[in-house]
Amino acid sequence: MKLEGKVVVAQGGGPTAVINQSLVGVVLESRKFQQITKVYGAVNGVAGIINEDFVDLTQETTNNLEQVARTPSSALLSTRDKPDEKYCKEIFNVLKAHDVRYFFYIGGNDSADTVRIVNENAKKSDYEFRAIHIPKTIDNDLVLNDHTPGYGSAARFVAQAFMGANLDNRALPGIYIGVVMGRHAGFLTAAAALAQKYPDDGPHLIYLPERAFDLDRFLMDVKEVYNKYGRCVVAVSEGIQDENGTPIITKLKENIEKDAHGNVQLSGTGALGDLLADQVKTKLNISRVRSDTLGYLQRSFMGCVSDIDQYEAREVGEKAAQYAIWYNVDGSITIQRTGFYSVNYELRKLEEIAGKTKVMPDEFINAAGNNVTDAFKFYARPLVGSGFPAAHRIRAPKAPKILHNLRERACE
Amino acid sequence: MKLEGKVVVAQGGGPTAVINQSLVGVVLESRKFQQITKVYGAVNGVAGIINEDFVDLTQETTNNLEQVARTPSSALLSTRDKPDEKYCKEIFNVLKAHDVRYFFYIGGNDSADTVRIVNENAKKSDYEFRAIHIPKTIDNDLVLNDHTPGYGSAARFVAQAFMGANLDNRALPGIYIGVVMGRHAGFLTAAAALAQKYPDDGPHLIYLPERAFDLDRFLMDVKEVYNKYGRCVVAVSEGIQDENGTPIITKLKENIEKDAHGNVQLSGTGALGDLLADQVKTKLNISRVRSDTLGYLQRSFMGCVSDIDQYEAREVGEKAAQYAIWYNVDGSITIQRTGFYSVNYELRKLEEIAGKTKVMPDEFINAAGNNVTDAFKFYARPLVGSGFPAAHRIRAPKAPKILHNLRERACE
Repeated sequence: MKLEGKVVVAQGGGPTAVINQSLVGVVLESRKFQQITKVYGAVNGVAGIINEDFVDLTQETTNNLEQVARTPSSALLSTRDKPDEKYCKEIFNVLKAHDVRYFFYIGGNDSADTVRIVNENAKKSDYEFRAIHIPKTIDNDLVLNDHTPGYGSAARFVAQAFMGANLDNRALPGIYIGVVMGRHAGFLTAAAALAQKYPDDGPHLIYLPERAFDLDRFLMDVKEVYNKYGRCVVAVSEGIQDENGTPIITKLKENIEKDAHGNVQLSGTGALGDLLADQVKTKLNISRVRSDTLGYLQRSFMGCVSDIDQYEAREVGEKAAQYAIWYNVDGSITIQRTGFYSVNYELRKLEEIAGKTKVMPDEFINAAGNNVTDAFKFYARPLVGSGFPAAHRIRAPKAPKILHNLRERACE
Repeated sequence: MKLEGKVVVAQGGGPTAVINQSLVGVVLESRKFQQITKVYGAVNGVAGIINEDFVDLTQETTNNLEQVARTPSSALLSTRDKPDEKYCKEIFNVLKAHDVRYFFYIGGNDSADTVRIVNENAKKSDYEFRAIHIPKTIDNDLVLNDHTPGYGSAARFVAQAFMGANLDNRALPGIYIGVVMGRHAGFLTAAAALAQKYPDDGPHLIYLPERAFDLDRFLMDVKEVYNKYGRCVVAVSEGIQDENGTPIITKLKENIEKDAHGNVQLSGTGALGDLLADQVKTKLNISRVRSDTLGYLQRSFMGCVSDIDQYEAREVGEKAAQYAIWYNVDGSITIQRTGFYSVNYELRKLEEIAGKTKVMPDEFINAAGNNVTDAFKFYARPLVGSGFPAAHRIRAPKAPKILHNLRERACE
């Protein structure tokens, strides 16, 4: 028997360049089913559900939805609320009051946990209800997924940023330190490696949260590269930690802000990059040292997106609607790689994904812990999509000197 | 009579996304003339001339030159050297020794001055010599030019960055401060305004070096916007100064680095953004305050370019070669606007451009000094080129509340 009722879709956590593709995938696919009475969007994620702040997406034009799909950041707006049991019960009460039978939440592992608890409330109440978590995170840190929607586009931005930074640094040599988002997983920072084309191209060094960061070792690494190339481009994850797991950023900055989850603020400040730059300046005595913190552009820059990422983000939304409405099952949509390059989508149990974090596997990190391997590049390259740009160099031969040769001859 | 000899082309100062278009314009156009015996590129700008570090671009393939033209940053590498009289004399000696009769220098107003002095040396020596300055700067601060090559692409990057930052800030509200390059001229920071589409879109406030920056006034402005929209996106020029002309960044940071020109280091650090964010946090007591410093991505990001900027950068290179080789005259190429949108190129005297700085005209800045006018937007919009992206919003109607209405009725 077909389960008749409303759909609610919401977006949670940090925005991505393709999170609206998933939203539009859910909406367009849900609207095809006769048993769906309305498709609601919750404004500001789960907070919007609590406040019954819904928009009726049944009345949105397909044309505008397609435009929204190509717009970065969460079109339904987002929230940093991390619902506890009580909050989830309230979510369920609202959904039930509105005769919502299908709940789709697009987000990371915290969002998967919210979906899980809301679903448990439905079961306890014997309320027929389908709940699906749709993956989204630029951090690429969801378990059981080959990768996550949002990562490919952010990775492309980071790669293109380092491609340009490397060219800039080559023209005006010195040390360049680029700080990349990523609290526990280094996937996004690692994507900087996709910028390399020629053997002397940066980033020459890549530091990830998966390996303990040692300041002296870092300085030695930079010095070695600088001695070799006369310049050095470094990619650093904002989440780098010392051997005790203490974030490096806390070592210098007082009054560090903490969020509702107790995490220290890593993004939205240039402090880590400035600290490392100061260390290189003072301890290695190199004059031209620059740091950039790539910041929020990584997840929301307008006009740098991976087409592969777009397609997949759309499809996880579509598949979510199909699983819930057609097959009448709950779970979390995952992406499985089936070829070079092809994927399939599988539904996994919510409790298998919820609250868990994936980090870079050892085979993606070099032995010295200061760069990535070719295995990582092979893994990540398809995800940044087609039309990936490449830098080109002048290859003309050197012209003969005249005055210097005359001077040399005069000295003989 | 045709002046036979070599061409030398060089690139100086900070790279741009289209500086190689000008280089390739010079090379391809010069190679068409029979009297040109060789086309040399000086590696590392004027420093490469002193060191006779030339590559023979006569032997470069046209195909590779076209690829290089689309690559950001200076393909011949650059220099921060600011030649004095003695340095310029040495440049001239090298050029003469190599039978160079045509010298093209792509750069800002300092580079124009170098061209001027080298040319004076040639005149004093009765050496037949043509010298042309080709404009380039993301700062858009060359006098007698409607705008400069490099600005349009950098402006596009800044606009797209703020477009995304505004969407992100709308999804997760708070204060966002984006710091943009520009020491004396605010044109690039002003380009953030091109990100606005809907009336409540950011940037809501724009601070330029052309107006004295007052911290208390800034905080009042931010508070006003925050009270109105529950969020605020701010664009700030790195070069903002107090009423005495002291850069705001020097007010907080000790041991400020100065370059060979005596300028304090503004770029390659997140210090200014962090200072302003701290002020907002502590004095306005707003919790979610983030700052990004757009950094070197503004001038070298791979894959964000204005086609208009590309065409014009190519043409100023071509025109330079035509003026010098065909018409046998010296000067600085300038861009004149002749329609909406069309341009023409005029040759002006080197001394009219050299060492001078253009800033934003008053009509481009609002009376309060915290935003730009429509006149600026009308001026800048064509420069960012075609295919400029636009953000789209959900326009679906609100759905009726159920529980909240029940609660209200229960309270009656």
